Amino acid sequence: MKLSQIGELSLLEQIRRSFYKKSKNVVVGIGDDAAVVKPLGKNLLVTTDMMVEGVHFNLHFTTPYQLGFKLISVNVSDIYAMGGKPFYLLLNIAVNKNTNTKFINRFFDGVKDALTLYDTILIGGDLSATNIGISLSATLIGYVKKHIKRSGANIGDKIYVTGYLGDSACGLELLKKIKRHVPLLSAKGKELRAKSKDPMLYAQCSKLFGEKLSWKVVEPLLRRHLMPEARDPKRFLKDATSMIDISDGLLIDLTRLCNESKVGARIYIENIPVSPELKQAASHLGISPVKLALSGGEDYELLFTALPNKKTKAFCIGEITKSERVIIDNSGRERPLVPEGYQHFAF
Amino acid sequence: MKLSQIGELSLLEQIRRSFYKKSKNVVVGIGDDAAVVKPLGKNLLVTTDMMVEGVHFNLHFTTPYQLGFKLISVNVSDIYAMGGKPFYLLLNIAVNKNTNTKFINRFFDGVKDALTLYDTILIGGDLSATNIGISLSATLIGYVKKHIKRSGANIGDKIYVTGYLGDSACGLELLKKIKRHVPLLSAKGKELRAKSKDPMLYAQCSKLFGEKLSWKVVEPLLRRHLMPEARDPKRFLKDATSMIDISDGLLIDLTRLCNESKVGARIYIENIPVSPELKQAASHLGISPVKLALSGGEDYELLFTALPNKKTKAFCIGEITKSERVIIDNSGRERPLVPEGYQHFAF
Repeated sequence: MKLSQIGELSLLEQIRRSFYKKSKNVVVGIGDDAAVVKPLGKNLLVTTDMMVEGVHFNLHFTTPYQLGFKLISVNVSDIYAMGGKPFYLLLNIAVNKNTNTKFINRFFDGVKDALTLYDTILIGGDLSATNIGISLSATLIGYVKKHIKRSGANIGDKIYVTGYLGDSACGLELLKKIKRHVPLLSAKGKELRAKSKDPMLYAQCSKLFGEKLSWKVVEPLLRRHLMPEARDPKRFLKDATSMIDISDGLLIDLTRLCNESKVGARIYIENIPVSPELKQAASHLGISPVKLALSGGEDYELLFTALPNKKTKAFCIGEITKSERVIIDNSGRERPLVPEGYQHFAF
Repeated sequence: MKLSQIGELSLLEQIRRSFYKKSKNVVVGIGDDAAVVKPLGKNLLVTTDMMVEGVHFNLHFTTPYQLGFKLISVNVSDIYAMGGKPFYLLLNIAVNKNTNTKFINRFFDGVKDALTLYDTILIGGDLSATNIGISLSATLIGYVKKHIKRSGANIGDKIYVTGYLGDSACGLELLKKIKRHVPLLSAKGKELRAKSKDPMLYAQCSKLFGEKLSWKVVEPLLRRHLMPEARDPKRFLKDATSMIDISDGLLIDLTRLCNESKVGARIYIENIPVSPELKQAASHLGISPVKLALSGGEDYELLFTALPNKKTKAFCIGEITKSERVIIDNSGRERPLVPEGYQHFAF
């Protein structure tokens, strides 16, 4: 059924019912001119992010479920990167009148599962029309006890990342070859049925990647791209002096952190964590895994700095310098650290 | 200069500098992963609204300055409609790479003047690309002591509106004939120069509307459409039992209020405030001013209810009933009150 047939008011009523969640903090939720909520904590965190069809996503590659899930993760990642906890979500969706209601419902399924994962409540939004394409934005409000800025890095601090880098970019490269939807098992098993019913997909993957690249290698990379999960900073909060999430690639985001902190950085290629799956798949694709780890975006790991004497349980990839910015390769050669990656323009 | 030439990072830096405003409530403003702000008051108000090119605005009719100004007013109106005060703004802008930086700068001029008018601070946002068209969204956070919901109307309450209705819709009709940008004098006189230098515009208007419709009649109607100002509810807060802003037309928004309050309404055509300008222009255009006042959207006046014994200083247009919903025309005839107007889908 098309959006224009069901009538948007009834769709909104459906969303309102489906997302209703009793909470002592939400005084007025979806359905009035504005939401009324209790502020939590001493400081509020607020972030917003946009996703535009054809720029941020391709509906031939991503399912509506994955799109909804990812939109939330991307915003949660920004709240996490300040050391905070997400709490209230607002959503703007502009779709074509000819959009199928099934698409909208699956999108909201993805949003809902992500909200459950991050323990966050939808409190409002705006559903609107476009003439062409889909445009999405989310605003997330959270709270924080002690926020961690990009600008807190000091000379001598160690530089850490919280997980494997490059997986998401590699997933995108694989997807460009697969050229179709890849249903992935969600936390709640929502897309499992589609997956287990899809022998075509495996046949296609074997044909594309041969015996060398099994589904066990391909699946986690695709997942990192299609349904990334934001990294909770809880374990690192005590030590971190500065923090940013890696959304546009290590080099760009490290440069941002250095610029804000007015310092330099020295990073060691051999210390950058790269997953076994990335190594295998990148070699098969003929791409350097290091390049993907340095410049590939959308991993949504955290990049942070900590005092050198702390025993921080994350991957130490280098240290903060006064001003020089260099990358040391595996044979000890230095080259300038310059921002390469996706130019995303959050302000 | 095109956006792709100046480089988006430098544009962001420009926005950051231009909007920097020292405030003890903004701990971290533009430029980090999320903004860190102090919560104000006991309850937060949060609202978000989207504007899509070709759906909500036409760049042949609206200047970028007016677009920026209006985006803020539209969101402020939602905060006002809850009885609150706006405070923090986040902005999402997706534009084409070929967009001229002048366009962006003028857009932000409009945003800035509106922020000054409403005493609100820009704390963050996202600047992104589209393949086609412009897509905008704003999220506004405010606070409220005692919020006023749509659902608070009681049987016997009087129904009020805070100002003339139909002006904006009439302005749009005029604009469709003028078919060009109409620079209007802003609060700060920003567009004055363009206006005073524009004899073409007046010549065109005289030719279109003849002697009967002077610029003094046309200008305020265009202004209500192009640069609406949200109505501060301050004076009505004490009395109001329920409130909504009139964004999609009186009939639609009154129906929403009635639905949420589970009541009916009886309104009197003769009591609906219509401006002298609307009467003149509508008669010239051959449109019924009453139709515009009932179904025309985007006036951004407030619609509220109050106890019958209060001496509320607004236009009383009717009363709340148990369930019947009727419009009484000037000769006393009744007809059913059904929602007619723009189907906008805020949730």
